[in-house]
Amino acid sequence: METRTVSLTQPRPGMITAARHFYQQGWMMGSAGNLSARMPDGSFWITASGKFKGDLQLGDFVKVLSSGEVSISVYDVKPSAETIIHQTIYALFPEVYACYHVHSVEANLVSSIVPKTQLHLPPLEMLKGIGVLQENPDCVIPIFTNHSQISLIAEDIKQHFSINPPQIPALLIRNHGLTVWAPTQEKARNYIEIMEYIFRYMVAAASISYTKTDNP
Amino acid sequence: METRTVSLTQPRPGMITAARHFYQQGWMMGSAGNLSARMPDGSFWITASGKFKGDLQLGDFVKVLSSGEVSISVYDVKPSAETIIHQTIYALFPEVYACYHVHSVEANLVSSIVPKTQLHLPPLEMLKGIGVLQENPDCVIPIFTNHSQISLIAEDIKQHFSINPPQIPALLIRNHGLTVWAPTQEKARNYIEIMEYIFRYMVAAASISYTKTDNP
Amino acid sequence: METRTVSLTQPRPGMITAARHFYQQGWMMGSAGNLSARMPDGSFWITASGKFKGDLQLGDFVKVLSSGEVSISVYDVKPSAETIIHQTIYALFPEVYACYHVHSVEANLVSSIVPKTQLHLPPLEMLKGIGVLQENPDCVIPIFTNHSQISLIAEDIKQHFSINPPQIPALLIRNHGLTVWAPTQEKARNYIEIMEYIFRYMVAAASISYTKTDNP
Amino acid sequence: METRTVSLTQPRPGMITAARHFYQQGWMMGSAGNLSARMPDGSFWITASGKFKGDLQLGDFVKVLSSGEVSISVYDVKPSAETIIHQTIYALFPEVYACYHVHSVEANLVSSIVPKTQLHLPPLEMLKGIGVLQENPDCVIPIFTNHSQISLIAEDIKQHFSINPPQIPALLIRNHGLTVWAPTQEKARNYIEIMEYIFRYMVAAASISYTKTDNP
Repeated sequence: METRTVSLTQPRPGMITAARHFYQQGWMMGSAGNLSARMPDGSFWITASGKFKGDLQLGDFVKVLSSGEVSISVYDVKPSAETIIHQTIYALFPEVYACYHVHSVEANLVSSIVPKTQLHLPPLEMLKGIGVLQENPDCVIPIFTNHSQISLIAEDIKQHFSINPPQIPALLIRNHGLTVWAPTQEKARNYIEIMEYIFRYMVAAASISYTKTDNP
Repeated sequence: METRTVSLTQPRPGMITAARHFYQQGWMMGSAGNLSARMPDGSFWITASGKFKGDLQLGDFVKVLSSGEVSISVYDVKPSAETIIHQTIYALFPEVYACYHVHSVEANLVSSIVPKTQLHLPPLEMLKGIGVLQENPDCVIPIFTNHSQISLIAEDIKQHFSINPPQIPALLIRNHGLTVWAPTQEKARNYIEIMEYIFRYMVAAASISYTKTDNP
Repeated sequence: METRTVSLTQPRPGMITAARHFYQQGWMMGSAGNLSARMPDGSFWITASGKFKGDLQLGDFVKVLSSGEVSISVYDVKPSAETIIHQTIYALFPEVYACYHVHSVEANLVSSIVPKTQLHLPPLEMLKGIGVLQENPDCVIPIFTNHSQISLIAEDIKQHFSINPPQIPALLIRNHGLTVWAPTQEKARNYIEIMEYIFRYMVAAASISYTKTDNP
Repeated sequence: METRTVSLTQPRPGMITAARHFYQQGWMMGSAGNLSARMPDGSFWITASGKFKGDLQLGDFVKVLSSGEVSISVYDVKPSAETIIHQTIYALFPEVYACYHVHSVEANLVSSIVPKTQLHLPPLEMLKGIGVLQENPDCVIPIFTNHSQISLIAEDIKQHFSINPPQIPALLIRNHGLTVWAPTQEKARNYIEIMEYIFRYMVAAASISYTKTDNP
């Protein structure tokens, strides 16, 4: 059985456990997705590009310094192509120490059902776990365009949140996936689970919505 | 492989096993849900607030005395915010020694499809496992409003069941989840599985119901 | 990892492995379902009533003699209430040495979509694994009424197959589940997997059938 | 936990791990599917016919020489009936060293929704993992007829790809399943995961597509 051993100065084992779990859920298939955790000195560890997420090794991560430089690695690995999105999140939110990004089928679906730039979430109790305490809340998360040039996505995120602080620490990139951020790795994992739960709910609800009025 | 070692005087290992199973089914994501088991002296152990349900530890439970007081704990934990619901169930049903509450996507869906205060269940053979023996039974379970003040939910449950004894040991809280109760932990786990099975059936049936008449 | 150690004279370990697998697939929730395997002397071992299927023990089976008597057991167990269905299958089909019965959501759904006494199966390649070799086959399996008196179901099965030999070694009981039979336990497990695969296909196809004509 | 130990000269352990994973995903139920890996000398190992894919043994493979002859085997096994499809793929694509074929419900569904000989894929980010780098790509894969005589399928594949080089290393056989090919076993596994992910997306999207216009 899995355990969740997470340390601020030794963040890789916690990400290995989280990635295995996300892979088993079908959220990191075909080497998709990337996870990072920030250290007290402002540097962060991030998964290397193209690695199998079901059984990451310590050598499958790259350390990115607060200067933006990639720390010298003895392994032949390069950081995720989406490192700049993690850098943007850490720059925007100083209290954040973990940033996780996964590619579920359901996140892709909810991002494409709505031809808008934000998604309204149903008022589920599960939202309490991500900090939403009011009764029948109306929460939204932004949906960003999936530019093939990643730096454009990062720029959009930076501009959007500079003007509109996030209601919930989560965003969608259309046809691409979910990103969450949190003060700890444990919370980041919980936030991924909660958001994916809500997306599964939305997909199932959309497939049965026409019956709402005439069901017994 | 898992085993189900359950003891009336040592109830925590059985709940650890059950929670792991429920977590793996997707019913306790993001630390959601809470489990309790009553002891012969009327006290009960309940999961502490905000704990990861995939690998609970003995220190992740709190003992609530029959007086309502929380037993002194050496761990820095507090009982689930929904402890009052468990207390209400134990007060209503003296033969009950286990009360389990989980948050599945399907339970949320069936509770929101029907704009009513009760849910009719389809006449599936699986109901035999929760004590329903008649042919083609018409069973209902109540759906309670999800007040953000938990004590109001507990009060609604108390009032409802004082007047209407339950047909089946299960209730739904809208947009929130399923609660079952049973004389033993084994039965409580079975009841959760049976009810969730029925909810999965109902969600799938709703998505195909329009084809019933014209299918070959 | 699991293995499939199956022996004609020691059939319980093979059923323990199969039941664990079926339970993990969600086909034996809440203690539902029953498995049996026949011995060379005509007796058979069958799962006892009400046992947890995720981790069966050797003592969770009962031996039924060819005379119909239950062998004396040192354990406090009774045979499955559906033993008479297994006896009927073994009497009808002398070449059969294993009979497995499970309760999936999908089997329940396909048995209730069609208001008829038989179900047409789609012409999937998977049918080859259950012995159907022709191109684009049109296979049917019977759907029996779920009488609460089990002996009536057994009588219906006996009468039906005495007149109409089965095209495929499988039957459905409406709102109840799937039964398959085979010359070996390995084949019985494969047949369960194949039939459940086809039911999952049919449920998914029913939920999208309306789009067939106008899809790009 | 699983690892992915893959060697060009010892290819069977990697296929055992991949088959177990595919089986657990429900893509190799009832002994369905077949995997092969080519060696530097042009021979290849392929799964034997009718084997349980959840726990393959070293003796459950057959070596096919580049001459087409089956290497003498000490085990009583015969190569998959679909060996000729693997031979065709290896003959067409000299850079390919692994060819995997699985039978998912979703692959069967998408192959039957569209009454055409090719399938358009939605422009998901996941396609990057199979080598598609452009923004909003329009990818197609061919759908071949499922002749019961396997050599006819192989002939169709050979003729089609001789004229139309594949855009993506993947093909569908209608009502049968998915085949992918890749320079390494790791990539073949990733390609299976990516294609199956896309098929799951397409099935779910088809079940909710009617709501796209009127969703809030």
